[in-house]
Amino acid sequence: MLLNFTKMHGLGNDFMVVDGITQRVRLTTEQIGELSDRHTGVGFDQLLLVEPPRHPDMDFRYRIFNADGSEVENCGNGARCFARFVRDKQLTRKRTLNVETAGGPLTLIVTQNQQVRVDMGSPRFAPDSLPFIADEDALVHTLALPATTAGLTQVDVSVVSMGNPHAVLLVDDVEQAPVEALGPVLESHERFPRRVNVGFMQIKNRSRIDLRVFERGTGETRACGTGACAAVASGIRRGLLDTRTKVRLPGGTLTIEWSGHPDESLFMTGPVATVFEGRIELE
Amino acid sequence: MLLNFTKMHGLGNDFMVVDGITQRVRLTTEQIGELSDRHTGVGFDQLLLVEPPRHPDMDFRYRIFNADGSEVENCGNGARCFARFVRDKQLTRKRTLNVETAGGPLTLIVTQNQQVRVDMGSPRFAPDSLPFIADEDALVHTLALPATTAGLTQVDVSVVSMGNPHAVLLVDDVEQAPVEALGPVLESHERFPRRVNVGFMQIKNRSRIDLRVFERGTGETRACGTGACAAVASGIRRGLLDTRTKVRLPGGTLTIEWSGHPDESLFMTGPVATVFEGRIELE
Repeated sequence: MLLNFTKMHGLGNDFMVVDGITQRVRLTTEQIGELSDRHTGVGFDQLLLVEPPRHPDMDFRYRIFNADGSEVENCGNGARCFARFVRDKQLTRKRTLNVETAGGPLTLIVTQNQQVRVDMGSPRFAPDSLPFIADEDALVHTLALPATTAGLTQVDVSVVSMGNPHAVLLVDDVEQAPVEALGPVLESHERFPRRVNVGFMQIKNRSRIDLRVFERGTGETRACGTGACAAVASGIRRGLLDTRTKVRLPGGTLTIEWSGHPDESLFMTGPVATVFEGRIELE
Repeated sequence: MLLNFTKMHGLGNDFMVVDGITQRVRLTTEQIGELSDRHTGVGFDQLLLVEPPRHPDMDFRYRIFNADGSEVENCGNGARCFARFVRDKQLTRKRTLNVETAGGPLTLIVTQNQQVRVDMGSPRFAPDSLPFIADEDALVHTLALPATTAGLTQVDVSVVSMGNPHAVLLVDDVEQAPVEALGPVLESHERFPRRVNVGFMQIKNRSRIDLRVFERGTGETRACGTGACAAVASGIRRGLLDTRTKVRLPGGTLTIEWSGHPDESLFMTGPVATVFEGRIELE
């Protein structure tokens, strides 16, 4: 089977994108694992498979697979790559795309400057939504550390769920923030029973932050989309940030928009890059 | 500039191979660095550029660039990929190729089963050739360790130069060999002034060894071609191995042939894999 694909990335989170509409694609778990190998395969964080929608009101369906072949629900960086791909490949001329994902329906908008705006749903702050063990919802929670870490015995965090759990710390200088020391300690803190992603946010002004994120199970990454959403959501809720804020991550910049109303969606806009076109012969 | 390329690997050592004969190629150091990135570029250990020969008696010239854009002399895995590439792309019908490299002329033979046989030159054992600090040439040298390592205060090594320096240890069980503990200690041992690659060789029988190699400046790798040559050369010289020996490395198997005569070349034969065809738009 000769398979055409496109290699893309969103802020360094990279995807092998496969058009399953104009070509017939059948990939086994084992094949996806082999393709993901960065030395002997194509190499990617995730494989993104574009398919026809199953419901007539929708434009496309897309599926995202991890390097181990397991299917995952969603990924902000992958959603942006998907939207650019279907337009670049002329599979659609629409700028607003209604798509089916394993995590539910999603609306994506391709902006005039070829960035992509993704509806990330509403942030939730209730401790149970992460889960986080606390007596009450609060803007800031003080966490006692199990041992003195980076000279600290406790830290103040805001907690946010974007579907996945986040703790956000305010820091004076994100470059100097003790991400490597505090990240693992907070990730596994007993008050986060399912662990947590940890964001270190430096507020530059009311519409601009610098952010580093220690991702649960992974360590520090170059660009965590949900981490950017969580940091800005917590900042807006605390009255520190405006409803449209730019987030500078090591891998690039995202724009987050949220009205602050609990029932309204938060939107993430960011860049997409096409790296190369490829074709591979599979057995 | 639209650049066509082929992604290949030899035992997991991977290359972006570019035909500079049928297309005009100009790559800057900066571009090579960007292309080497495994998330935002194509990703490779080395870039291999195929060019017309400068001397009329030769078939091709090829150049190998590291990920940082620096040009390197030679690489056994890269030579094999080159030979398969020029035949697969129908740039030649010859099976024996005389090529110019930065390390001097090289003869490559494509075998009937599509493996490639590379003339690796003659192994040298004189201490000065590595360099290795010793009073005399010997089959085996005893090295005192600066501190007890993996329960050892000294180890016996054979020393071999394949253009680069190697120390080879005999071990009873390569899986259990203390590669991570001993590798760095021997790599930086004071008797190897320019450091050394360290091979851990388990002799299965007179024509088969298992090998793990701790590469100078890199750590353990999946398949060190010159390490395989050095290990077999030392084994043949010590009378422990036959003139044709298979070497099983973590990344795959190489066959090494050497007559044992100091002036004769050693040959390495191994597999090559084409992964995919790509095209990338460069500015």
